This record gives sequence, structure tokens and C-alpha cells, in this order.
Amino acid sequence: MDLSSLSYASRFDHVSGSAIREIFKVIAQPGMISFAGGNPSLAALPDDIVAPIAKQVLQDNGKAILQYGATEGYPAFVESLRAYVKSHLQLDLPSVLPVTGSTQAMDLLCKALINPGDRIIVENPSFLGNLQCMKLYEAELVPVNSDEEGLDPDHLEHLIQETKPKLIYTIPTFQNPTGRTLSLSRRKRVAELANQYGVVVAEDDPYRDLRYRGRELPTIKSFDENGWVVFLGSFSKVISPGLRVGYMAGDAGILRKCTIGKQSSDVHTANLSQAIVDQFLRQDLLADHIRRISAAYAQQCDAMLSHLASFPAGVSYTRPEGGLFIWVELPEGLNAKELLNQAIEQKVAFVPGTHFFADGGHENTLRLNFSGSTLTQIDQGMSILKDLIQ
Amino acid sequence: MDLSSLSYASRFDHVSGSAIREIFKVIAQPGMISFAGGNPSLAALPDDIVAPIAKQVLQDNGKAILQYGATEGYPAFVESLRAYVKSHLQLDLPSVLPVTGSTQAMDLLCKALINPGDRIIVENPSFLGNLQCMKLYEAELVPVNSDEEGLDPDHLEHLIQETKPKLIYTIPTFQNPTGRTLSLSRRKRVAELANQYGVVVAEDDPYRDLRYRGRELPTIKSFDENGWVVFLGSFSKVISPGLRVGYMAGDAGILRKCTIGKQSSDVHTANLSQAIVDQFLRQDLLADHIRRISAAYAQQCDAMLSHLASFPAGVSYTRPEGGLFIWVELPEGLNAKELLNQAIEQKVAFVPGTHFFADGGHENTLRLNFSGSTLTQIDQGMSILKDLIQ
Repeated sequence: MDLSSLSYASRFDHVSGSAIREIFKVIAQPGMISFAGGNPSLAALPDDIVAPIAKQVLQDNGKAILQYGATEGYPAFVESLRAYVKSHLQLDLPSVLPVTGSTQAMDLLCKALINPGDRIIVENPSFLGNLQCMKLYEAELVPVNSDEEGLDPDHLEHLIQETKPKLIYTIPTFQNPTGRTLSLSRRKRVAELANQYGVVVAEDDPYRDLRYRGRELPTIKSFDENGWVVFLGSFSKVISPGLRVGYMAGDAGILRKCTIGKQSSDVHTANLSQAIVDQFLRQDLLADHIRRISAAYAQQCDAMLSHLASFPAGVSYTRPEGGLFIWVELPEGLNAKELLNQAIEQKVAFVPGTHFFADGGHENTLRLNFSGSTLTQIDQGMSILKDLIQ
Repeated sequence: MDLSSLSYASRFDHVSGSAIREIFKVIAQPGMISFAGGNPSLAALPDDIVAPIAKQVLQDNGKAILQYGATEGYPAFVESLRAYVKSHLQLDLPSVLPVTGSTQAMDLLCKALINPGDRIIVENPSFLGNLQCMKLYEAELVPVNSDEEGLDPDHLEHLIQETKPKLIYTIPTFQNPTGRTLSLSRRKRVAELANQYGVVVAEDDPYRDLRYRGRELPTIKSFDENGWVVFLGSFSKVISPGLRVGYMAGDAGILRKCTIGKQSSDVHTANLSQAIVDQFLRQDLLADHIRRISAAYAQQCDAMLSHLASFPAGVSYTRPEGGLFIWVELPEGLNAKELLNQAIEQKVAFVPGTHFFADGGHENTLRLNFSGSTLTQIDQGMSILKDLIQ
């Protein structure tokens, strides 16, 4: 029988693969200036630190690293991670679960909580990869309005009352794709609403350590009284995405369900990756490393912002205090997909904003990443974009 | 609101976590002789080889390894994996997808294919971890009879006609938990039935390289004419489970769906793990390593079998030609869970066979693993079991 008679699971009916990852393939040409990715800069990747650490941990604990590990995590890393989460996020006695990148955290949380048809409130726009994850669990995405201070808590409360969601998904700090940060008062309010209505909040906060100005804000989780907030952390943006190490911190019962789900997802996260991140925490290498890369990213961010300041009137953009992204709105009527096609001809790439909206639309928006480009590339690429828009 | 009002997804209604993994915690006491695991022996884990490789690949390609990778796999590894699959499994021009242990392969295949209520034919008994995976996709498990030559193809055809399954799951070589191997003629027949009726076969074959006697058999996949068979491979048993590197080989369309599913599972498998396995293939280190560990495992297997030969009449057991497990049937009326409780008191552990059956029962069966114990431990532990049974 021919394989064309094979039918796939219905969870794929409305999912065709990440549009961003397809764009990546088109733009993976030599000489391309890419503002499209969300990658750390190559200079920020600590290969000189990791190479000797990898050898050392294998010499010291090679058998344990190469053997099967516990789904609950590599013991030394669980220990240092708990201490890190406690001191760094001011969370008292947290339960933690190491995961294979915070993408897996979202997957496990959906696995634990979401039945087909359940509603998830998402920022609009939001992170494409996790929107795809929710769609594969056949959740109904409910977009909440947001402004310069992040998601609008009044609209959030209205939507909670109206749609009775199972989950609220938010990226509170230097959001992907907008670069916006949820204000302090709204953080408190989100935690209160979660507790008041009994809705789980997934606080996805991978960028919080990449702050270039302004004051650090407490997590939503820190205002959580009854365990409704699950914090999703990542070492991808501050050490290495290629190692695939993230974590969940939250209620022990919720994390237990995620642990059972993880048993049949990948048994456990690669021990060697966990052991390497453990050494960054244990040897206290992280703060210095983050200081160094943040100084460089701040320059790249400022360079891109100063170019945007000279763009034609009618172009607006966010001024993020950290993270990796700037969000741009072109004058109504301009189409970012068409702009991308023209830009690619001149070897410049970005991601059209429409991909980040649960319901599409917003064709005049785009996301710019500054971390993956040198100052020279930013100068060249932004000049080309400016000319194209004019 | 108290978190006790939280309800979890219905896929967890009949899943409470791997019973084996819970047993592991109970028996993780110092001095325990464990025939319970499925772990490689510590002596078989090549930490002395991996430590310098890890440092070297990070020195040579550190930026690419620490950066985000493609969901489709680390390019050098994809190249060497394709060559390996072609020469080693005699598969012509296969599509391959590196995954985070072959456990993830099963998860992605279910994600791609299984709607709630879909039927999956499984050997009875079968590998517990993957049975749990199928249950989390709310599949209905249909057990097929098996005997010394593996699953019974006549019963399989009957069940295909009767239940119209979406998937057939088989571990054809040195099966977990029985140690049995599907015969050559049955391998052909399974491939034919899959093609005749249009059912996908998941050929899970992690143990095939651990052969201590007898002749190597071709894969089911090698008899597959139209792409219905997906081969699930693993480097966990022959290099290291802690690295979490497995692969799928099969039809490009099916693997494309699995790749989209993997985007939101973990984006990609840890590059460092892929780069290390790549070096084993590229430097041709695998064959020698497998020869070395197989020689040791064969001794352990023989030692356990020679003890079993002296067990009381009425105790039957399999005589595997490879792999990690021997399957024991006690006389009817004896209960392996009770035997385990008594054995644990004398510091010996194994897994009661009932856990491996989709519908439970078979209380007089048990699985013994020989790879995780020294010859001395096998002598001590098997003597204790013999005394307890007598």
C-alpha cells in the first residue's frame, strides 16, 4: 500500500512548522545581515570556558554523566540550581525541574494541564515557538491586549471571567517579540488574578538577566501565594542554547506531573549539559559572563535604536531596557513581508511581525534582533532598511 | 485560591509514573545487588574516550556547538549518521532525524500519528517506558501474542483486521523485557503485513549490536517497500545513555512531521552530545568499543544463565543471544512481587514482570538484568534468589 494513504494526528491540522525556522533557511546565505534570529552573538558563546569544563567534569564524574540519570535532574545541578533560584530570583525553597531547554518546560506544562479545547491566554504578539506548542495540544489561544507596560491586567481579568482559561502565558521581561517589560504593579496584579480565579501562570523569563538599563524587577512568581505561578527559566541566552538546559520552578505537585510527562518525553536532560551549567553556577562564573555579554549587547541595542531614530516619521518602535529584540511598527499600509522580500535581495533579513500574532494580521509590524549582528552589520543593515522604507 | 482546585489533563487519568522508576528509588540503597535496571555497566561507559573528545570538539567547533542548532540535527552528525545507517543497517539513502534518546523517537511518532482512541499493537510484555508514552497519547493498547520467535504474525494479522491499528510497536532484537528475537521469516512477514494493510511499524532496536552468539538478522525496515516501517535507533546501550542521543530512520514525510513536532518538544538535541557521537562514528571507534563491552556482557549473561540452570524444576527462562535481559517464569501460584519484597530484605532486586504487560497479570514472571552487575554480584544475587524460590 502506498504511504499516501497515511493520515497524521489531528493535532497537526493547523500546524505546519515554525514559519520563523523556514525563514531561517531562506536567509542562511553567505553575506546575509540577519536581524531575524533570536540567537546569542557568537562572541557571547563561552566556548573557551566550556571546553575545559567539559573535559574536567567527564574526568571527575564521567561514569555518572554517561550513565542514565534521574528524570528529576543531575543531582549536583539540582543542588546548585535550587541555590541559584533561591538567591537569584528570591524564591524561598523552590521545587525545581531541569528541562531540555525552556521550550520543553512549556511542552511539559501543556502536557500536564491542557485538554483539547482548553483556553490559554497569550500576549499578542508572543513567542511563536510556544504558540505552536500550544496549538499542538489543541488549545484555543485567547489574545490579551498589551501596551508599553506589557499585558493589560484589566483586559486579562475580563478575559479570565469570559473564557475561563486553564493557563496564562506571559514573557514579562524584554518580551519576545516586542522587547516590552511588564511593570511592577502589573506583576503583582497578574499573580493576584491567578490566585483569585485559580488559573496557572507560565512565567517565561529567559531574558531577565540581559538588562542594559533601568532597575531589575521581581518575578511574578515572587508575588505568588498559593503556587499558581510556574517560573520557566533558561540558560540559553546567558550561557548557550546549544546545550539545551532550562528549568521549571514552582509547586511540587505541578512539577511532579511534569516529571512524569518528561519520563516519556526524553527520560532526562543530557547529563553532560547539566554538569556544565552546574559548574557555571558552582564556580560563580555566570555573573561575570553576563556582565561581559550585556555590555556588548547594550552597544548593539543602542546602535540599532539610534538608526531607528532617523527613520521616517510614522515609524514607531520600542526602546527595550534589555533582551534581544526591538519591535517596529511601519505606517499603516506598509507590508513587512513585502519589505522582507526587498530586503533579502539586498542581503538583509528580519521577521515580519504578523507571525507572532495568534490570529495573524498586523502586516505593518516587524521584529528586529540586534544580538546576532556586529556594529558594522547593524550600520549597514539598518541603512538599507531605512532606504527601503523611505 | 488553593491549588487543590487545579485539575490536570485527562491524558494523565491512567498514568501514574513509571513503576520501574519508582522501584529504582526504593532499591537505590548501598549494597543492593540490582538485577532491576536496564543500565549499561559502569565499565562499559567510555568516559576515558569521551572526555578528550568533548574538549576537542568544543575547541574545534565550539561556537557552532554552543549556538542554536537545527531541529534536523547537528550537520556533521547527520552526515555521519546517514553513512552509518546505510552501511550498518543496509538501508539505502535513508532519511534520518537525530533525537534526544530513542524515547523521544517514540514520543514524536505518537505525536505525529496518534489521536486519542487510536489503537497501537504492542508485544505482551513490552517496554514499560514506551507503553507509558502511548498511554499519555491516550492510545488503546492491543497486546499481540508472542513466543520464542517473537511476536506471532498470524495473531498480528488477525488483530490488524479486527482493530484497524494506527501503529505496531515492536522490539525485534533481544526484546525488553524477554530477551527474545524476532525470527527472519517473521521480520519479512511483519513488513509485508504493514504494507498490505497500511499500518506504520515502529521498529525499536536499541540492543541489536549487543549480540553474544548466533547470527545477525536484517532489520524489519530492510524488507519495507513503501515506507511503512520507521526504525528507532539508539546510542544509549553502545556508547552512553546519559548523552541522550538516538535517531529515527524512515520515510521523509513521516520524519518531517516528527521534525515539526520536535520544534516545540526541545527545538533540537544537545549539539555537544551529537558532536560526541559523531566522533565515535567518524573515527570508527564504535566497533572496537562494542566488541569490548559485548565480551564482558556475554560473560555476565552466561553466568546468570548457568545459575538459572540449577533453579528448581518449574522455573523456566529465556536464553537470549544478546541484549541486557533474561525473562523468568516461576511456577504458577508464585508471586514475583512477594519474591521481590523478600529479595530486597536480602539486598537483591529485580523487576516483577507484571509491570510490562499492557493489562497487568502474569504475576509469576520477572525480568533479570545482567549488564549492571559484576560476576561476583551475579553469583551472590542468583544464589539468594534460588534459595528464596526453593
